[in-house]
Amino acid sequence: MPTAEAQQLDRTFHALADSSRRAMVARLTRGPASVSELAEPLVMSMPSVLQHLDVLQRSGLVRSEKVGRVRTCRLEPGPMRTVEDWIAEHRSVWEHRLDRLGDVLDDAFPNDQGDSST
Amino acid sequence: MPTAEAQQLDRTFHALADSSRRAMVARLTRGPASVSELAEPLVMSMPSVLQHLDVLQRSGLVRSEKVGRVRTCRLEPGPMRTVEDWIAEHRSVWEHRLDRLGDVLDDAFPNDQGDSST
Repeated sequence: MPTAEAQQLDRTFHALADSSRRAMVARLTRGPASVSELAEPLVMSMPSVLQHLDVLQRSGLVRSEKVGRVRTCRLEPGPMRTVEDWIAEHRSVWEHRLDRLGDVLDDAFPNDQGDSST
Repeated sequence: MPTAEAQQLDRTFHALADSSRRAMVARLTRGPASVSELAEPLVMSMPSVLQHLDVLQRSGLVRSEKVGRVRTCRLEPGPMRTVEDWIAEHRSVWEHRLDRLGDVLDDAFPNDQGDSST
């Protein structure tokens, strides 16, 4: 059974796998916005916008609050941090491996100083 | 029309939105592996493993090479870097906003030094 963190990562990566949803996230990094402000630059119907917003809200990346007739959306930093942590954790392993590869190459070709002149 | 970079981000985020595929990526951060080595810890049929591998390869995160009967898979750092760059670019905006919020709170409550004792 997947852990809660695995499910969170599934939902966040899925939410970010669409350029319209990333555009909405990008807009919200500049500050809270109403649904119509989010929809404005997107070339799509309001039901499509609301569907994308729903995916973002289910991932936890975005939360919204309705005051009067206006629903205001804002970013929640937690889920993005979970994604960053996952990437950082795995990057460090492979960067370390690339460093070691560099060392091996330096040992194997000690006179090659990266100078390609003949 | 989405740019090539947007399509790359779509594919990479989609590839990472599944815990089995993330497990395969995590395994490959420790070095190249055969398809059977990738499949071994996963509780699924070989056709399912190959389907997941196909998604990873189409995203560019993984490439594979068949020598004799063994297909060896390895990680390609490029797509993950594109994802990291996207996150970093948007994180910096909102972290800056959080810093400013911190400054505003400090100004509003200058005597609150975060000491919760009474």
